[in-house]
Amino acid sequence: MIVVMKPSSRPEDISRVTKRIEDFGLKAHISQGVDHTVIGVLGKVFSELRDALELLPGVEQVLLVSKPYKLASREFHPLDTLVEVGGVAIGGNEIVVMAGPCAIESEEQVHATAKAVKEAGATVLRGGAFKPRTSPYDFRGLGEVGLKILAEAGKEYGMPVITEVMSPDQVELVAKYADILQVGARNMQNFVLLDEVGKTKKPVLLKRGLSSTIQEWLLAAEYILNAGNENIIICERGIRTFENYTRNTMDVSSIPIIEKVSHLPIIADPSHAAGKWYLVPALALAAVAAGADGLLIEVHPQPDLALADGPQSLNFDTFRLLMSQLEPVAAAVSRKLASHDTRNKA
Amino acid sequence: MIVVMKPSSRPEDISRVTKRIEDFGLKAHISQGVDHTVIGVLGKVFSELRDALELLPGVEQVLLVSKPYKLASREFHPLDTLVEVGGVAIGGNEIVVMAGPCAIESEEQVHATAKAVKEAGATVLRGGAFKPRTSPYDFRGLGEVGLKILAEAGKEYGMPVITEVMSPDQVELVAKYADILQVGARNMQNFVLLDEVGKTKKPVLLKRGLSSTIQEWLLAAEYILNAGNENIIICERGIRTFENYTRNTMDVSSIPIIEKVSHLPIIADPSHAAGKWYLVPALALAAVAAGADGLLIEVHPQPDLALADGPQSLNFDTFRLLMSQLEPVAAAVSRKLASHDTRNKA
Amino acid sequence: MIVVMKPSSRPEDISRVTKRIEDFGLKAHISQGVDHTVIGVLGKVFSELRDALELLPGVEQVLLVSKPYKLASREFHPLDTLVEVGGVAIGGNEIVVMAGPCAIESEEQVHATAKAVKEAGATVLRGGAFKPRTSPYDFRGLGEVGLKILAEAGKEYGMPVITEVMSPDQVELVAKYADILQVGARNMQNFVLLDEVGKTKKPVLLKRGLSSTIQEWLLAAEYILNAGNENIIICERGIRTFENYTRNTMDVSSIPIIEKVSHLPIIADPSHAAGKWYLVPALALAAVAAGADGLLIEVHPQPDLALADGPQSLNFDTFRLLMSQLEPVAAAVSRKLASHDTRNKA
Amino acid sequence: MIVVMKPSSRPEDISRVTKRIEDFGLKAHISQGVDHTVIGVLGKVFSELRDALELLPGVEQVLLVSKPYKLASREFHPLDTLVEVGGVAIGGNEIVVMAGPCAIESEEQVHATAKAVKEAGATVLRGGAFKPRTSPYDFRGLGEVGLKILAEAGKEYGMPVITEVMSPDQVELVAKYADILQVGARNMQNFVLLDEVGKTKKPVLLKRGLSSTIQEWLLAAEYILNAGNENIIICERGIRTFENYTRNTMDVSSIPIIEKVSHLPIIADPSHAAGKWYLVPALALAAVAAGADGLLIEVHPQPDLALADGPQSLNFDTFRLLMSQLEPVAAAVSRKLASHDTRNKA
Repeated sequence: MIVVMKPSSRPEDISRVTKRIEDFGLKAHISQGVDHTVIGVLGKVFSELRDALELLPGVEQVLLVSKPYKLASREFHPLDTLVEVGGVAIGGNEIVVMAGPCAIESEEQVHATAKAVKEAGATVLRGGAFKPRTSPYDFRGLGEVGLKILAEAGKEYGMPVITEVMSPDQVELVAKYADILQVGARNMQNFVLLDEVGKTKKPVLLKRGLSSTIQEWLLAAEYILNAGNENIIICERGIRTFENYTRNTMDVSSIPIIEKVSHLPIIADPSHAAGKWYLVPALALAAVAAGADGLLIEVHPQPDLALADGPQSLNFDTFRLLMSQLEPVAAAVSRKLASHDTRNKA
Repeated sequence: MIVVMKPSSRPEDISRVTKRIEDFGLKAHISQGVDHTVIGVLGKVFSELRDALELLPGVEQVLLVSKPYKLASREFHPLDTLVEVGGVAIGGNEIVVMAGPCAIESEEQVHATAKAVKEAGATVLRGGAFKPRTSPYDFRGLGEVGLKILAEAGKEYGMPVITEVMSPDQVELVAKYADILQVGARNMQNFVLLDEVGKTKKPVLLKRGLSSTIQEWLLAAEYILNAGNENIIICERGIRTFENYTRNTMDVSSIPIIEKVSHLPIIADPSHAAGKWYLVPALALAAVAAGADGLLIEVHPQPDLALADGPQSLNFDTFRLLMSQLEPVAAAVSRKLASHDTRNKA
Repeated sequence: MIVVMKPSSRPEDISRVTKRIEDFGLKAHISQGVDHTVIGVLGKVFSELRDALELLPGVEQVLLVSKPYKLASREFHPLDTLVEVGGVAIGGNEIVVMAGPCAIESEEQVHATAKAVKEAGATVLRGGAFKPRTSPYDFRGLGEVGLKILAEAGKEYGMPVITEVMSPDQVELVAKYADILQVGARNMQNFVLLDEVGKTKKPVLLKRGLSSTIQEWLLAAEYILNAGNENIIICERGIRTFENYTRNTMDVSSIPIIEKVSHLPIIADPSHAAGKWYLVPALALAAVAAGADGLLIEVHPQPDLALADGPQSLNFDTFRLLMSQLEPVAAAVSRKLASHDTRNKA
Repeated sequence: MIVVMKPSSRPEDISRVTKRIEDFGLKAHISQGVDHTVIGVLGKVFSELRDALELLPGVEQVLLVSKPYKLASREFHPLDTLVEVGGVAIGGNEIVVMAGPCAIESEEQVHATAKAVKEAGATVLRGGAFKPRTSPYDFRGLGEVGLKILAEAGKEYGMPVITEVMSPDQVELVAKYADILQVGARNMQNFVLLDEVGKTKKPVLLKRGLSSTIQEWLLAAEYILNAGNENIIICERGIRTFENYTRNTMDVSSIPIIEKVSHLPIIADPSHAAGKWYLVPALALAAVAAGADGLLIEVHPQPDLALADGPQSLNFDTFRLLMSQLEPVAAAVSRKLASHDTRNKA
């Protein structure tokens, strides 16, 4: 931590700052610049200290030198984390495609979709039973009934399943049925929920908040890591910007950034980013070309009859087409799509 | 709801749209424009219908005519809602100032602050016992111990108290001690929590999410209203923008907008918006001039020793000064600050 | 400037950095922290140096200690700058209201407006002759014909006039007729234009760019100051955010910030910020309460017949009403509205 | 255009609206909904009409049905536009890579770079002679001297050259040396400049404004088209968001959107989007996978000595590596990199 004094600061201001630093058991190191005196703080700093020093007379700004997250950082854990789920390893050389309907509506819908996406090459089945909806009047999901439908379809088709958990008191229930717990964008800073999924050892897919910086996103992951769960998959799903053609703006640059600063695997959700099905394939290809470890894609037997997010869902044909386009792009970046064969061998 | 067909749409596309509309028990009304055929949908529309129609061949866009929220709207409830709490009425002619520390740290800190802010003219005491923190390593609050300290200070100084509830399973506990339940910005779309505070009849202060549109904010209020609780106070606390001098950008225009489109009272939290204590007075005056029904302000006996949000906290002197500046501005817009006298008479 | 080395940096990395600093004739000052070595750069730094050092091996980040603008800063020029125009002083105790139509349409329109706004208390007349329009098919202004109409109306009613200049080659022409040259939001970083208005000594009103940070805005002012013109009025007109109820989001906090970090006067344009006339009064009052030195307001005899920006224009009645509301708010913050009387005495 | 009346509107409000529509020589078509009366406007509408109607009593909102741009739209011009420059066709099956330094600094620098990027496979040479700089104290380019150096290097290495034009009065000069005129992000709504480059027949590369919607961007292209120049290349270079790890956020979704709604070719500038050289390759690959017709990439012999944008520049080695990675990704989406061979044959 570095304290930059104002050009107008007086010697007593500097003494006050160094005294405060030493009161906390840390060491102060003064450098006299041309305009500014700069005071380095040596020792284990903490966030409150920054606030405390910033308010002292004569202080212009306090600069943080270290990153605020630790367990999530590449420095702390140089090797890539692999999240294993049902024989599928996320974060390795293979690209994992998770597909299925936004909301679980019926057994028929989920089974038909599971069959179709598996045949097309998806290895994880997605589906929502508890749905966060902007309006209280929208369909909020089938709840436990939906979880059962999803789990049975996963078993029948040999696919691990992922579904969202919206609240700390749902964690136990959802964990009973799901192989991966999804924390949605609106809950990325639901810290009680983060603590709770951190206490399980289940893989957690952590979506980026609508207006979260990459640093805040990794601090949310840090909550889960700090609670003892290392099985985290980071998921870029678009951020909120002024552009309104798309529902959100997929921040494709977050993919190489996360890869650089963290050891956690990162996948992309082009469906929520785009909000329009016809943009999903281009965004999916872009994410894989940029280094994503996987994709989360909404697929529905009949998107125009879907109870949620129909406009951004692919149908079986467009999903199959996308999978065939993904394969050469994955190969072009020296990776391949995870397959059921590799899974069984794993 | 209005369906705009593409210039290139064919008669069978139009028939398919009208059939789908009629299948839902609604009526379709076709207008033939120069370039576009436009189909009006008559009857009680619902959000899924928009999605369904948007995906049909030949459809260019589907426009919503009605607002998606109802109970929160001025049309539904033309008169201003007054939220009464401990003899204080929020949403009437008087401007209510809620003040206190960001985090409850000790009995001494809370009592000293309560005494000071009361003497300066605040009528509600604020203080956080459960703190949402971006980093898991920051101080997360004293929990129930803090709630007790706050409630006792409120009793001693005759002030209703407001504190944050972060999770559905905390609602019961927090409601035992608090007069107003605060739902924080990061939880504005924590729909399970909204349902839960909606089931109590306690006044709820609903902060705007960091990247929430005004419409989404009112839909969050709609969740609480829909669950049966009409005692809602809306709170502007700044939105996330590209500007980084301030922590957030206070959207002062939301104040007259909420007043126009909704009957719910709206207050402003200039402390979180600014993130810097020296900007708080200007923002507080601006909010009141723009029509805010109250203010939520962070005050700490010694901001440079605060365990949370020190840089944005006023100390007792700067708070007193602000209160003296607020009075003439309130008078200039034909309002006055709520006082303990008026409260006792109420 | 402070260079923070990576924890993993080697002694030769540090030598390379210090050598590069010394090659530029500056001095390096090394502090050894617990994790990071920090190198202070002493002497007159420049922006390219930051880039150069950031790319050297072992460097984690380069932090700027000094502000990049100088002439525009309060440190350089502690006293408030007063911009005098036609007997009106902008930046002093009096609040200056500039009012008139968005686009000059006809002699009748401008004269009627000039008369009405003067009677209501405005002291500067605004009107656009060169209009920046998002679409090439919209009305782009009357050009020089419009400038003449504006200048004559100004003369007749004894009001200085302000109008926009869109391009360097228009500066001479516009300066012939206008008392204040307006640089619009879309031209805030039109650096050739900034240089050109800087070469005149005419007062310049510099609007904030749609997505400009406060620092970039002051650097745009720095261009004008650097070219020799100190008569600059800064104008907040709303920034682009995700919120779409308003055309832009008025960043009211920029008013106290500019006042703190710069000596230049700042006014607000609530009309462009809101985009809806019925929000203009609340925003105007908020701006004055927050400390604005003036207002720029669109007024049209018949907004529903305006050729540009009708929806955000006040008519004569609503403008008169606003002026009557402004007066007590100005008084509440110990200021008063500039009047024609004070002007004549000046 | 569709006028939605308020539920509370009266018959005389509706008559007033229809009369106003008819006064403009258009036809009104009334549909009676359950809550809202909706009035369709038939005939050639114009933007002022929307404003005019929105202000009439009883009107809730006015919805635009048609896109505001025409010449730039896919509907008007269904086939892809190919922009031919020096034997290179931009917008066809081949992906065109434009590379070179941000700022032209010397003959040696430009020649060395031209040689290196040509050998690596770039087909257009870029370099800035007039540099828009946020601070007036930064290096602003060599001006005409720089243009000459660029043009000569282009001639020597057989590459068409692209460079920025910042102001209408520079157009003639820049057009003398450049094969493609670049309009920078900060000038995207410099309408006088757009008109001026529209009057030449030179290819124009139009960068997206920092906070421009896709619609505004296409309206800027419409200015150029409307002035008679069809040789436009659209360039995504990142938008301004709250994220501060990157300089801008590359909106990769704009690539398939432009392809869908417009006939103009679109390329990406990952260097300015990222602001950090180590992110450029991932973004470049993503852009090509998403369908970009080309790339604009900053390359410098020694980025740590560059006078502008060093941190985002590739050196010769990293550029060569990127080109070798691009080839298989282009092939994976059934395209190939433009080469000097194909060019010579064209």
